[in-house]
Amino acid sequence: MINVLFAARPERWETYETPLRRAFAEAGLEVDLRAEFAPSDVDYIVYAPNGAVQDFTPYRRCKAVLSLWAGVESIVDNATLTQPLARLVDQGLTQGMVEWVSGHVLRHHLGIDRHILGQDGVWRAEVPPLAPDRRVTVLGLGALGMACARALADLGFDVSGWSRSPKEAEGVTCLSGAEGLDRALARADILVLLLPRTAATDNIVDARALGLLPEGAVILNPGRGQLIDDAALLAALDDGRVGHATLDVFRTEPLPPEHRFWAHPRVTVTPHIASETRPGSASRVIAENIRRGEAGEAFLHLVDRDSGY
Amino acid sequence: MINVLFAARPERWETYETPLRRAFAEAGLEVDLRAEFAPSDVDYIVYAPNGAVQDFTPYRRCKAVLSLWAGVESIVDNATLTQPLARLVDQGLTQGMVEWVSGHVLRHHLGIDRHILGQDGVWRAEVPPLAPDRRVTVLGLGALGMACARALADLGFDVSGWSRSPKEAEGVTCLSGAEGLDRALARADILVLLLPRTAATDNIVDARALGLLPEGAVILNPGRGQLIDDAALLAALDDGRVGHATLDVFRTEPLPPEHRFWAHPRVTVTPHIASETRPGSASRVIAENIRRGEAGEAFLHLVDRDSGY
Repeated sequence: MINVLFAARPERWETYETPLRRAFAEAGLEVDLRAEFAPSDVDYIVYAPNGAVQDFTPYRRCKAVLSLWAGVESIVDNATLTQPLARLVDQGLTQGMVEWVSGHVLRHHLGIDRHILGQDGVWRAEVPPLAPDRRVTVLGLGALGMACARALADLGFDVSGWSRSPKEAEGVTCLSGAEGLDRALARADILVLLLPRTAATDNIVDARALGLLPEGAVILNPGRGQLIDDAALLAALDDGRVGHATLDVFRTEPLPPEHRFWAHPRVTVTPHIASETRPGSASRVIAENIRRGEAGEAFLHLVDRDSGY
Repeated sequence: MINVLFAARPERWETYETPLRRAFAEAGLEVDLRAEFAPSDVDYIVYAPNGAVQDFTPYRRCKAVLSLWAGVESIVDNATLTQPLARLVDQGLTQGMVEWVSGHVLRHHLGIDRHILGQDGVWRAEVPPLAPDRRVTVLGLGALGMACARALADLGFDVSGWSRSPKEAEGVTCLSGAEGLDRALARADILVLLLPRTAATDNIVDARALGLLPEGAVILNPGRGQLIDDAALLAALDDGRVGHATLDVFRTEPLPPEHRFWAHPRVTVTPHIASETRPGSASRVIAENIRRGEAGEAFLHLVDRDSGY
């Protein structure tokens, strides 16, 4: 019997208990799944932010901490965590992100807002440029960023991607490092932010970075609110240097009703819906990692604690 | 020397003269291109609607009539036309159509209008279903319909396609015939109209067809205005059985400012911009067909005069 501690807020238990039990059964695992255990009895911890476990020291037998989330910033700096930490890379999460990013890139590319907001009876037959003439830059080439960059390239866009360390992807111009970042920004008619939140990415889109974008560039942020210096973005939106920002994530969520983003004519707020873990597919990822741990195989999606993701 | 008559409205000459001459040169063809010739001297006719040539009888030496347009309804029933007729299948045209269709399918799938129109400070974190749970039906599996169906399948949608005669496409459930049409309509959460305009497709989306759609279905029409019975569509939109219609083509264009489509809250009018022939790529298609004619090879994209497309 494998003892799995579900360490998350109680309402998550209601969402995840059934899909997790089903996924364990499908994987042929005999699991005792509970929201409470004596720490010394726990084999694996399923983790989401704001749960009861903050001190991992007493979980000496625990083979791995398996995050229910893709973002691990609430746990990665926890000095008591010495066990392997795996993030969630969920097909449903990736699929949802690709849909949100593709949909909003095409929306801005085609100028769909003009038609939704401007049904005034005037026939303005201006044809937009084709996708090969639209340059899209994706910052961050992790699982989500890479999937989005590839989908946009498949749609025909002229896509660049930037990551801290060099990567390669078919159909995507891959840039890296500090100098690569400046080049990636300078060609971003549409900029998509899919970086992890780390000390190095905090405020990466600041006044200097915004100043490198082409005039009238569009910013999509389905990544993390902390990637953007909000005051600098509002200034660039106010004077039109940035044409539009469609933002799904914020420093404070829910975004307070009085925040300027809600009322700004060049901002579209979406309520952190770009991608959400789907319980069924997420549970299968957790089960697969436990199966691997029991079989002595390498865990999937391990976090590099030094880089923070 | 090959004599090519440019038979279209004079303003098209300004747009097409340079790209056509360039395409002929690139193809190694020695062409005398003019907007006027003695009919008996003409080897090929480049055709667009509303040009000077309506009677093709005197063009006895002409090897083919090459349409600048994808739609050939203005010429296909012309009894004086005995020469082979080729439609334009242009990569730019196809690419533009795929972008418009993908963008508007994702827009409706993700519910983007709600966010554009509803920036009211209220955080409504409702995540849309994923694309595999959204059924899209494409009516018409010609070059444009097939490219759109495949692109939507690549984005993960559950795609069906319908054509008069049976077809096959990877990732697309292909239906055909009268019974297939009813099945295709019954599973269309989003219905995309890309049929050619023929006697058989006039008003194909009538009250009966609309009655087969799932409650709240969305209709996209980038094909031909004549495919839809406008009165039946307005009735279905008025009572909400059809959730939204995004229409790019109309029986009368420009759509008159007083037309109910402009003001209807469930209708988005776009001004026939879904796809337009791009002079550069279109000219290369024309040149390739003349090269084939001169080399004794089969013409590309020949129209079947009996079926009308």
